[in-house]
Amino acid sequence: MTLRLHNFFRSSTSTRLRAALNLKGLDYDYVPYVLRNGETRTPDYLAKNPQGLVPTLEKGDGTFLTQSLAIMEWLEETYPHPPLLPSEPDARARVRALSYMIALEIHPLNNLRVLARLHDQFGADDDAQKAWFTHWVTLTFDALEEELSRAKETGTCCHGDTPTMADCCLYAQVWNNRRFDIPLAGWPTISRIFGNLDGLPAFTRAAPPNQPDAA
Amino acid sequence: MTLRLHNFFRSSTSTRLRAALNLKGLDYDYVPYVLRNGETRTPDYLAKNPQGLVPTLEKGDGTFLTQSLAIMEWLEETYPHPPLLPSEPDARARVRALSYMIALEIHPLNNLRVLARLHDQFGADDDAQKAWFTHWVTLTFDALEEELSRAKETGTCCHGDTPTMADCCLYAQVWNNRRFDIPLAGWPTISRIFGNLDGLPAFTRAAPPNQPDAA
Repeated sequence: MTLRLHNFFRSSTSTRLRAALNLKGLDYDYVPYVLRNGETRTPDYLAKNPQGLVPTLEKGDGTFLTQSLAIMEWLEETYPHPPLLPSEPDARARVRALSYMIALEIHPLNNLRVLARLHDQFGADDDAQKAWFTHWVTLTFDALEEELSRAKETGTCCHGDTPTMADCCLYAQVWNNRRFDIPLAGWPTISRIFGNLDGLPAFTRAAPPNQPDAA
Repeated sequence: MTLRLHNFFRSSTSTRLRAALNLKGLDYDYVPYVLRNGETRTPDYLAKNPQGLVPTLEKGDGTFLTQSLAIMEWLEETYPHPPLLPSEPDARARVRALSYMIALEIHPLNNLRVLARLHDQFGADDDAQKAWFTHWVTLTFDALEEELSRAKETGTCCHGDTPTMADCCLYAQVWNNRRFDIPLAGWPTISRIFGNLDGLPAFTRAAPPNQPDAA
């Protein structure tokens, strides 16, 4: 079964899913879209993904899965080894909560269509967009740093020493922060974990600059 | 084991979790917080939930779970019957994707702290906040209506005729929409499903006006 990943190199949700696919050791065909050119708003793409968002995972049977977190859970259930979640329910809840801190409280507020809306509705210029982006990163990274630094479960990765779904989300968000040059220095635990992940091929192969459509 | 739910009657994430707890037939102690008074920003609450958000679920062993979707997955793993997710991976992916359309693409953009930020950074008045809120609901509800109306899997609920995690999210979001008087008429399938859910005690008991802290 050949998987096809419909995605965009700079998209944070695409990056986190590429890392998950790589951690699972799954090959996939890379199908790039240029978001700014409306390539995900065509009738053909909307038939795959009614939200017109990336990523979409096309399965070998020609059906489509949407929403990066739902796809990661599907990967976990369909290709259990190596796991992206620990086995015990409380530990799974911690990893999912860390993932959702990033995937729900940062990314949805800072993606391209939200920044465009701030411009269109409120006239937000580049500086105002950067202030908005930085505000939401800071609010949640402060809480994430607190949780990661105080919990005994934190290891070289967000949970223990094996990468999980939370590390996929964290790695992609740190890359996303670079769009606005947000330094990591104020979050030493996040910075340490990102450094560890960035030494692993599954993550570096998922990084935006290493994709075929990177500028 | 007694569960304690730290929450707020009008919070959409609290409403979805209350519905999930009710569907599972689980009793819980209700601990209310007034968000506008900063009651979730105290050191005591931040020790439970470093983000200072609701809901937080306190387990009988005195530990805490955060992020409503992570808590719902924990409930599913800890109390499997009745299930909040179907059994087959593709079906589970669909239910999670429907859930995340609401939980990631609407709610994070429209909660109180975001509307407050729009006011503080851009001077957004009530009308501008309503326009913002309505924009994100409409964008995703249009896509959700498209998916729900065209998929053969849709039944009296979002997926078949048994309530799932997606219905918990949808029910809570429709209640949330009422804060800004957004009519459902343009989304007949969503409206039909909401009507079905609103006939079930597990959902009506979770609705904001039926909570002890409702004004």
